Amino acid sequence: MATETPTTDTAAPEEETDGYVQPHVDIAELTRLLDGKYAEVRTLVRKNLAQNAGILEEAETLSRDDFRDRVKEVVVEVAATGQTGVGFPSEYGGSDDIGASVAAFETMAFGDLSVLVKIGVQFGLFGGAIQQLGSKHHHDAYLPDTISGKLMGCFAMTEAGHGSNVQALGTVATYDVETQEFVITTPDDSAHKDYIGNAARHAEMAVVFAQLEIGGKSEGVHAFVVPIRVDGEPAPGVRIEDCGRKMGLNGVDNGRLWFDGVRVPREALLNRFADVTATGVYESPIENPNKRFFTMLGTLVLGRVSVGGAGINASKLALAIAVKYAVRRRQFEASKDAPEELLLDYGQHQRRLFPLLAKTYAMHFAQEVLASRMHDVFSGVADDEGDRRALESRAAGTKALGTWHATRTIQECREACGGAGYISKNRFDALKADTDVFTTFEGDNYVLLQLVAKGLLTGYASDFSDLDQLGMVRFVAGTAVETVLERTNVHKLLERVKDLLPGDDEWDQEAGLLDPNFQEAMFRFREEHMLSGAARRLKRGVDSGMEPGEVFSRVQDHVIDTARAHVERLVLDAFVEKVAEMPEGDNKVALGLMVDLYALTTIEADRAWFMEHGRLTSQRSKAITREINDLCRKVRPIAVDLVDAFGIPAEVMRAEELLTWGD
Amino acid sequence: MATETPTTDTAAPEEETDGYVQPHVDIAELTRLLDGKYAEVRTLVRKNLAQNAGILEEAETLSRDDFRDRVKEVVVEVAATGQTGVGFPSEYGGSDDIGASVAAFETMAFGDLSVLVKIGVQFGLFGGAIQQLGSKHHHDAYLPDTISGKLMGCFAMTEAGHGSNVQALGTVATYDVETQEFVITTPDDSAHKDYIGNAARHAEMAVVFAQLEIGGKSEGVHAFVVPIRVDGEPAPGVRIEDCGRKMGLNGVDNGRLWFDGVRVPREALLNRFADVTATGVYESPIENPNKRFFTMLGTLVLGRVSVGGAGINASKLALAIAVKYAVRRRQFEASKDAPEELLLDYGQHQRRLFPLLAKTYAMHFAQEVLASRMHDVFSGVADDEGDRRALESRAAGTKALGTWHATRTIQECREACGGAGYISKNRFDALKADTDVFTTFEGDNYVLLQLVAKGLLTGYASDFSDLDQLGMVRFVAGTAVETVLERTNVHKLLERVKDLLPGDDEWDQEAGLLDPNFQEAMFRFREEHMLSGAARRLKRGVDSGMEPGEVFSRVQDHVIDTARAHVERLVLDAFVEKVAEMPEGDNKVALGLMVDLYALTTIEADRAWFMEHGRLTSQRSKAITREINDLCRKVRPIAVDLVDAFGIPAEVMRAEELLTWGD
Repeated sequence: MATETPTTDTAAPEEETDGYVQPHVDIAELTRLLDGKYAEVRTLVRKNLAQNAGILEEAETLSRDDFRDRVKEVVVEVAATGQTGVGFPSEYGGSDDIGASVAAFETMAFGDLSVLVKIGVQFGLFGGAIQQLGSKHHHDAYLPDTISGKLMGCFAMTEAGHGSNVQALGTVATYDVETQEFVITTPDDSAHKDYIGNAARHAEMAVVFAQLEIGGKSEGVHAFVVPIRVDGEPAPGVRIEDCGRKMGLNGVDNGRLWFDGVRVPREALLNRFADVTATGVYESPIENPNKRFFTMLGTLVLGRVSVGGAGINASKLALAIAVKYAVRRRQFEASKDAPEELLLDYGQHQRRLFPLLAKTYAMHFAQEVLASRMHDVFSGVADDEGDRRALESRAAGTKALGTWHATRTIQECREACGGAGYISKNRFDALKADTDVFTTFEGDNYVLLQLVAKGLLTGYASDFSDLDQLGMVRFVAGTAVETVLERTNVHKLLERVKDLLPGDDEWDQEAGLLDPNFQEAMFRFREEHMLSGAARRLKRGVDSGMEPGEVFSRVQDHVIDTARAHVERLVLDAFVEKVAEMPEGDNKVALGLMVDLYALTTIEADRAWFMEHGRLTSQRSKAITREINDLCRKVRPIAVDLVDAFGIPAEVMRAEELLTWGD
Repeated sequence: MATETPTTDTAAPEEETDGYVQPHVDIAELTRLLDGKYAEVRTLVRKNLAQNAGILEEAETLSRDDFRDRVKEVVVEVAATGQTGVGFPSEYGGSDDIGASVAAFETMAFGDLSVLVKIGVQFGLFGGAIQQLGSKHHHDAYLPDTISGKLMGCFAMTEAGHGSNVQALGTVATYDVETQEFVITTPDDSAHKDYIGNAARHAEMAVVFAQLEIGGKSEGVHAFVVPIRVDGEPAPGVRIEDCGRKMGLNGVDNGRLWFDGVRVPREALLNRFADVTATGVYESPIENPNKRFFTMLGTLVLGRVSVGGAGINASKLALAIAVKYAVRRRQFEASKDAPEELLLDYGQHQRRLFPLLAKTYAMHFAQEVLASRMHDVFSGVADDEGDRRALESRAAGTKALGTWHATRTIQECREACGGAGYISKNRFDALKADTDVFTTFEGDNYVLLQLVAKGLLTGYASDFSDLDQLGMVRFVAGTAVETVLERTNVHKLLERVKDLLPGDDEWDQEAGLLDPNFQEAMFRFREEHMLSGAARRLKRGVDSGMEPGEVFSRVQDHVIDTARAHVERLVLDAFVEKVAEMPEGDNKVALGLMVDLYALTTIEADRAWFMEHGRLTSQRSKAITREINDLCRKVRPIAVDLVDAFGIPAEVMRAEELLTWGD
């Protein structure tokens, strides 16, 4: 690691305006802030990562089958340290701490991501479904062996024909009252389960999502525990195919499953939210079938929170490598007879990396808030209907933004390391290939942002979860636009926002760019205006007699922008609040730069919108760009400290060539 | 292939405004237009691609060494068909047609890209250097076996310590007057040759770039032919290391080279531009050493033109797969009881893919112009100093934009295919991984755009190529800004532009968005304004006493934006001109939609800048966005035809799962 190299002293900004004094970052203190209340489990994860760092090389040298087995081995070893069990009930050896389990998972993203995803499949999806959708007898039967990794399972939801639209799944589970069994069948080829992690090689058991049919009546999608493999061979009636080589994550054995009249006992239904009596009577405490379905799906929230966090942490790794390389690598002379310039002293290079660094900090703290909300809902501290809906929406939005951020950041950092970034042992190869699917799995990002928008547009109405896209269009069309705003908490802030954004030419165009009230007001205004605009367009479309589907298609980009603006505002709020709580001192100054950089680069990226809507004059817009360049120069001397504070174990950084450049 | 599927009839736009009539694309005719004057060699390439399509699967199944050998085999087989020799002189079996060789190369990008890059290394870089930098005795000695692939060679320019800054290379070639030999040495570890394609396994010979020293005096970088391998073993004094696994292109054996006093005869100097007499007198027809250096580097232009073209064609493949999948795959219902909607009927999905499709068409025709200019320069039809400089600049800019476009397009198309896009056999895996380095090799894209900007800022002054970055800053600082503009041909268009862009509120905000004069005026105005602004800022910085290096660092993003704006304007010009030449008819209407979509989405992407500079009102800016959405709906029914016209052989499309979806 390059921490000891005195790389920062040449780079102090030559002008110190408005009393700004270069902060000296206390790295250890900053790491403690980032680790937060889950420092203990994160320390355990770092130890496990260092211990198993050899897997990064094995990913490149072993055959696919051997690598898959090796990943399984590592997963079981990690499980033995207790790391992966913390979210489970204490009676089964866990710590009842779902927040800790998310912290552990996201920290694992510094290492090999096949190990990460296999852990996600085994303990998060399979174990999580048993725990969240099942009853005590399921827990007793499966949780102990699941937590130890002795029983490997998979989560068979997605089908070839239906990924995001789970409600339309084709697999059928028919109740046979004679034998008191469910009969699981794949009715046509597009209904086979697809991309199922753990299915191709290791899983003995699957949680299968299927349309429950009783006496010819369909009761909607439910989950069943189904043995799929016995002594290493497919169970009778089960056909398994290997998905074969993937772009990345080749240590995870994704497979396809077909069921041909596979019989499981009545108890195989995970019956927390609905059950079938021996005589074939369907019973559920949730009357509305759509609501029941979305309540079950709500348990998917853990997966989304985890993947979003993993994306954010993968970004940290990419930035740590690129920043540390850029304070070692030189290219072209700054002046004759001088040594060549360090990459990080180029304005363009700072512009490429620092806004991504700032967003990574911002997303980290937004993820912390999300994980803590999730912990409260799952542990029953705060789990009324409204809490659950807000959590689902926040999880969906954070997952989308966090994973897109990862794709973008890793790409930019690879390019910023030039040809060296292309060599596999410098980490970007696996990092790029493995994270690429994050934007797709656990919910396609666009579909997730639509979910966020639906919540905003319907004001999380009581029948919110009951609505599909077209129901949503009709709902909005039937409401006054004002109602949309009143239902959300955006509206009440609008007046304050208007005062802060006079927008006339009298105003000092440069003033207040670093005022948190200005930044917040801009984010709020955008969200509110986009939301009311989207509602108006949906309404107008339906009123003019267009088909709701066509209306939705035409307003879709607007709807998605609205969701994005909302989530970006949540991210800013979380970051601002965190920094406000910090004690005065250099670290607070340093993170203050990150807040300003995140806020201003987000506004800059959408400055056309702000100008179009009269909230930014062209002079002030240009002033923002200048301010960002100033901020980048201020961040330059502390950039290495800021990535060191992520606490990435040296063993998994690998990239020796890049990080010891010039030694 | 899905060509026969009647996918288009459901999607006709329901309203036909301003007399617009849905065109019926003549696909074969459009393919002929795209193939242009090099249809014959492209047909040969398509045949070779189909013949060797099995390599796409072998890339996934063979070990690295076996795959490298297999790629070599394919390269030699392809060479035997004459495809790769067309650019060489006819006396050595070629066709003296360098334009054809570029057309062949870029068409090869539909297939496995390790084969492509190995062809580039062997025939473009190694063979090209022998041809362009050597004399007849080099041609006689090496070209026949190079063209057949019997003699494998590599191009040893890049060093670990110096990629983009070639002038600062560390390898030394000292002339020993006693033995009339050059002694090639790697003086320190950072001067070892790195990432050299063909070096790790196959090359027997290298063109080595080294600092020529005679009697203690350095004469700058020159190229030498050096045997590096004898009977499969490293030649005496040569150390070879394997770069190992890379993110992609693992069928190319990249390696590292160290030279320890390796002796080559005086004739090993590639002496077209400079020679050393037996007695050690240095002679060159080009007096200025910097100019001599850049004249030699000018031969790299072929590599840049080829890689840019390959990026553009790789984008075609990604779009073809994503568009064809999106007219088969359905997701979510448009209305109750209706089948689920096709992906391509969603507004957001059209917005994701069609602007990229339009830019791909635009870049294709810009590349055609570039290749034709290169042909003229290399064949001596038009090769004065000015032609060469304009070509180098255009090649650099097109390479940067074409390869970034590939990275972005392939990523978007992968995500648009969801989980299926992640499965290797659906093509995106290799396509993403293999093309990723295109933005870095043959010149880092940012460095290339700086080269473009340097030409614009110095008006291609007679000592233009003599200037490094800081020389450029000083040059600009010493000139009146007006001179910068007068030297370029942008200035004369400014008055016309001003008339076309009144920018006051009286004006009809919706009018003329599809007027080519408006579009052209916007592109021109942006280029001119950015250029003069950058010149002013450079000047002001130096005048205020700042170090030129610091001035450059601060204006760097502006300089790069200027270059990008310039190249985007060249691309628009090329596309507009091409379509203007087409006979009236449906194909012209179809490509007209592509022109408008390219022009307006480029303006939209930079609309903040146009608003900041008073060239776009907020109302008109919003009108552009609406117009783009309208254009997307018009493109929808012909989208499949537009990708079919690329003429990608079915054999290399692979992706059977995606392309036969729903059958």
